[in-house]
Amino acid sequence: MLLRIDHVGIACANLDEKIDFYRSTFGVTVVSLEVNEEQGVKEAMLHVADGEGGGSYIQLLEPLGPDTPVGKFLAKRGEGVHHVAYGVPDVAQAIREIGGRGVRLIDSDPRHGAMGTSIAFLHPKDVGGVLTELVQSPPRQSLADET
Amino acid sequence: MLLRIDHVGIACANLDEKIDFYRSTFGVTVVSLEVNEEQGVKEAMLHVADGEGGGSYIQLLEPLGPDTPVGKFLAKRGEGVHHVAYGVPDVAQAIREIGGRGVRLIDSDPRHGAMGTSIAFLHPKDVGGVLTELVQSPPRQSLADET
Repeated sequence: MLLRIDHVGIACANLDEKIDFYRSTFGVTVVSLEVNEEQGVKEAMLHVADGEGGGSYIQLLEPLGPDTPVGKFLAKRGEGVHHVAYGVPDVAQAIREIGGRGVRLIDSDPRHGAMGTSIAFLHPKDVGGVLTELVQSPPRQSLADET
Repeated sequence: MLLRIDHVGIACANLDEKIDFYRSTFGVTVVSLEVNEEQGVKEAMLHVADGEGGGSYIQLLEPLGPDTPVGKFLAKRGEGVHHVAYGVPDVAQAIREIGGRGVRLIDSDPRHGAMGTSIAFLHPKDVGGVLTELVQSPPRQSLADET
């Protein structure tokens, strides 16, 4: 079911500073920078690798305010890993299967993630304390479209 | 510098139970099961994907006792993500470069990781609260050796 580790989501207090740090320390580059009002975050995707199933990224998350999920996470735990996301071929099917095995879903229907993805979160209490996200990449442009 | 997300290290109280959970929920398989006395853990590598730079894994960690690093982590934070590991081509060179940029190293020399890898940890205080590991895969058998 899992195609790749799509990204690791890391909560931080200052997105610009953390982007600079990851760029200068690890040589990774920003491929997407978005504000997601619905989730209350400003987020950057830093490209690590490409694979057959899609890319792998470091996702840096700065909360838009203290009352957002990431804002509360920062207040409680401090900066650090917020969630882990795995690539799946079909997120709707994946959450049907996983929900059917008794794992509680935060999202019973997929919603929009960064870079045109379709995503859903599983409840961390049912995944050994790990807030776990499933990610379906947007359909790739076919080679025919590019020529 | 980074080739891939090599693995996400997840601390758990009961390795066998958590392996069963990941296997039945996500369909991942155990490719390595080791006791690392030096690090005070029993660890399983669950295969997620292969890429050009090497594989990607979920690493489940059960402490050998309460006074080990993972034992203390569990007592303080509970089950959850313990560290993030990135593949690099040459871990000795990577920590020289990164240490030279002022990031404190937990390991100033590489040491042995799971499955024949060579690894080094960076200090989480200098990486935004993320305990960060760098992993160099063992040399692959050349094609000539296999024929």
